[in-house]
Amino acid sequence: MELESRSDEGLADTPVEPGRVRAISLERAAEVSREIRDLISAGHERRAWELLRTLHPADMGSIVAGLPRSSREAMLRIMSPETVAWMFRQMNPAVAARIGTRIGAGMMSTILRQLRPQLALETLRRLPTLRVRPRLALETLRRLPTPTLRIRRESGSAESQLEDTLDESEPLAHSLDEAGAIMTASFPSVGRSELVESARANLRALEEDRERFSHVLVLDDGGELFGQISMVDLALSENDTPVADIAETVVATVNMDTPVEECARLQRHYNLTYLPVEEGGRVIGVIPSESLLSATVEEDTRQMMQVASVAGEVIDGPLMTSIRTRLPWLTVNLGTTFLAAATVSLFEPTLTQVVVLAAFLPVVAGQGGIGGTQTLTLIVRSIALGELVGVGATRILVREAALGILHGVWLGILVAVVAIIWKQNLGLGLVLGVAMFGNMIIAGSVGAAIPLLLRRMGVDPAVASAVIVTTITDVFGFLLFLGIASAAISLIQ
Amino acid sequence: MELESRSDEGLADTPVEPGRVRAISLERAAEVSREIRDLISAGHERRAWELLRTLHPADMGSIVAGLPRSSREAMLRIMSPETVAWMFRQMNPAVAARIGTRIGAGMMSTILRQLRPQLALETLRRLPTLRVRPRLALETLRRLPTPTLRIRRESGSAESQLEDTLDESEPLAHSLDEAGAIMTASFPSVGRSELVESARANLRALEEDRERFSHVLVLDDGGELFGQISMVDLALSENDTPVADIAETVVATVNMDTPVEECARLQRHYNLTYLPVEEGGRVIGVIPSESLLSATVEEDTRQMMQVASVAGEVIDGPLMTSIRTRLPWLTVNLGTTFLAAATVSLFEPTLTQVVVLAAFLPVVAGQGGIGGTQTLTLIVRSIALGELVGVGATRILVREAALGILHGVWLGILVAVVAIIWKQNLGLGLVLGVAMFGNMIIAGSVGAAIPLLLRRMGVDPAVASAVIVTTITDVFGFLLFLGIASAAISLIQ
Repeated sequence: MELESRSDEGLADTPVEPGRVRAISLERAAEVSREIRDLISAGHERRAWELLRTLHPADMGSIVAGLPRSSREAMLRIMSPETVAWMFRQMNPAVAARIGTRIGAGMMSTILRQLRPQLALETLRRLPTLRVRPRLALETLRRLPTPTLRIRRESGSAESQLEDTLDESEPLAHSLDEAGAIMTASFPSVGRSELVESARANLRALEEDRERFSHVLVLDDGGELFGQISMVDLALSENDTPVADIAETVVATVNMDTPVEECARLQRHYNLTYLPVEEGGRVIGVIPSESLLSATVEEDTRQMMQVASVAGEVIDGPLMTSIRTRLPWLTVNLGTTFLAAATVSLFEPTLTQVVVLAAFLPVVAGQGGIGGTQTLTLIVRSIALGELVGVGATRILVREAALGILHGVWLGILVAVVAIIWKQNLGLGLVLGVAMFGNMIIAGSVGAAIPLLLRRMGVDPAVASAVIVTTITDVFGFLLFLGIASAAISLIQ
Repeated sequence: MELESRSDEGLADTPVEPGRVRAISLERAAEVSREIRDLISAGHERRAWELLRTLHPADMGSIVAGLPRSSREAMLRIMSPETVAWMFRQMNPAVAARIGTRIGAGMMSTILRQLRPQLALETLRRLPTLRVRPRLALETLRRLPTPTLRIRRESGSAESQLEDTLDESEPLAHSLDEAGAIMTASFPSVGRSELVESARANLRALEEDRERFSHVLVLDDGGELFGQISMVDLALSENDTPVADIAETVVATVNMDTPVEECARLQRHYNLTYLPVEEGGRVIGVIPSESLLSATVEEDTRQMMQVASVAGEVIDGPLMTSIRTRLPWLTVNLGTTFLAAATVSLFEPTLTQVVVLAAFLPVVAGQGGIGGTQTLTLIVRSIALGELVGVGATRILVREAALGILHGVWLGILVAVVAIIWKQNLGLGLVLGVAMFGNMIIAGSVGAAIPLLLRRMGVDPAVASAVIVTTITDVFGFLLFLGIASAAISLIQ
């Protein structure tokens, strides 16, 4: 059964208007969620909706997303497409798509038309039913201001164009990671020779959307960027002030194809609230503050997830998405652990003679892995925050290697003492201590070198660093430990 | 030699004024950094400064931080305290403290007086020379609006008060993590019965600081919060409009002791640009947008770092700070790897019989560790983004366990096939496959359960999850693999 809008039934299906809702605590949100579930189970769907409609759309979204499917559908049947769009606007598109799976094509089309094109497309791409709705999909694609998609508008039938676009999902995914996908083409601006009065008039013409902007752009006659006027200055200026008198320099601009990652870096580094988008010297759009700030938070999430190899996933999303995200990395990692296994295998004769060595394999490798991950996480994040400008790679490498030496001395002595006491074997303790010392130096150096190297190669250091670093610390840890043990076997036996 | 201000020498030591500077690319920043170093080496310090003074303070800061010490000091000798403060405002306080180490007490005092109290204190706390400057430190502490510190103002001499405050560094550090530490007590407001004209007058009275605010607060007679007016609405309204007509509801407010972490969550969830701070029903301050957005980015950094056990560190900071942050975790982890070692040790008789088993220890443990970390990272981040509201713990546990089963089937078969072909040992392959299957289920369940459990206990799940989860996957991985191998030893030999 597909859900369709019931707004024609004349029910009180609109939420409390924006600007009149307050935040609720996490505890209250959990409580409301329970109450709504109970009310729906008892058949009081209208009363459940009365409770839900008083909430902020961000809270409404997370509560609806958390409901069991039948309760969720009961709520969606009551909500108008406008309300659903209002809620989707505050939501991760993957979650929106999961909620939207059972919404009928007609209602979904109305909802998508009320979203920013990029958000609409991101939602649409994740709908399992996408391929049966080529016209709906194409209509959304057409509204997207990215150049990659614009080229595709011109040739072929709707269905074949959609097939082309979806099958070539690589360039599509690429262009969605660019500034063009999160900008809006309608923004407040004023000519540099005009007065504050015109700036106000242009701003007023944007109607409800104007709350999204922190500045009015000042443009030259040719559409080139001259400067910006903050809303504060606009609020405090007289109508007959020339805008050129109060304009300030715009700190940063981007192009349509600037990666969203770079937009997020600019936001963090310069503490920006918006970004103008230029193309061929002219301003063609603006990334408004809500999109820019969401982009930064999403980039932070992506980065943290990518270090753990789970990028692109949301909790409670479809199982298939999770498998597609995680299993490839798990499989790659399996390959690298076999490298470690092959290293250990080389020393089977030694292990046969002194089987107690096997017990200490996880100690050497585990410590190296943690040490390497500490360093690489610090460097991946420092790169993202732009903290490594002018700091030479050599200086960082030397620093992390030095830390490896200091940590190695402490951990080497500690591990040696514990092993000597535990196994009553002086030789074993010494070999273990030396191997630990060596592996901590490797961990520090490699943990620093790999992300720096990946960045120099133009690869996102968050993506592959962790797998590479832990493989190296595993393999070299085993080589050191079992190699030294083999050489000094008479000491241990 | 301590650096002191040379501004009295009448040099052109001021930077290009704010509002007139543009961003530069990372490549250009690296270039400028090199040029400045070369100019200083050649004795052209003034020309180096002429280059530096045209930059945005954020870029000036990262370039100065990246210079070798002698060049950095040459630049600091030329800069006025105002310029240094301007640069420090855009900088991580740990980096600012490192740069500030050699700045003389007189100049440092002038610099700190121009910073937000919290930033000044954060910088001061990290100065190695702090204890020789009790008066400077206390003066900064006095300006801090947190209640914890306010209590301390009343008793004892300056030196003893400072000693008390610094020695009790735990409560100090605690209060700095609260909303009170990042709020400002001077913010634009207007009475609810007044006209837009008064709102404009109050905003104008804030002078340069007013650019930091996106809204003017509307207060009742008692100082209680009635609503907010956005700068956009203020810019578009006539002077004689009653403010009550255009006021909107404030989405969220916090108290002085609300954790900064919660402020960041509110910012992300509701896409906020500022937060009013209430105490006893009255508005006593506002967290302006730059502080709120920095807090969110810092929280994201802290969280990502904490999953890797490196929280609180900056790249290129003092070695001692890095050791203090990382070594305790490395030592805790050493303890946990010994648990894994003890598990392996239990099976020494089995390993003696079939030494080839040792080679596969890193395979079973490594995969479990990665799988568990994937799950826990996803859940830690979802908790921080508030995406788990109303989603029951059971549902998440079941979902992750199910993923563990699916991943385990694939990886178990794969690892069995590879082991059978490589070692020509059917029994080994089967044992390995079953152990892998089991450990992936454990990884999924534990990776989900630990952060959820820590949250329920009121502990930040980012802090300890990774160590606990990898310890469990190591120990149970070895127990499963070597346990099954021992039971089925006749199959393997």
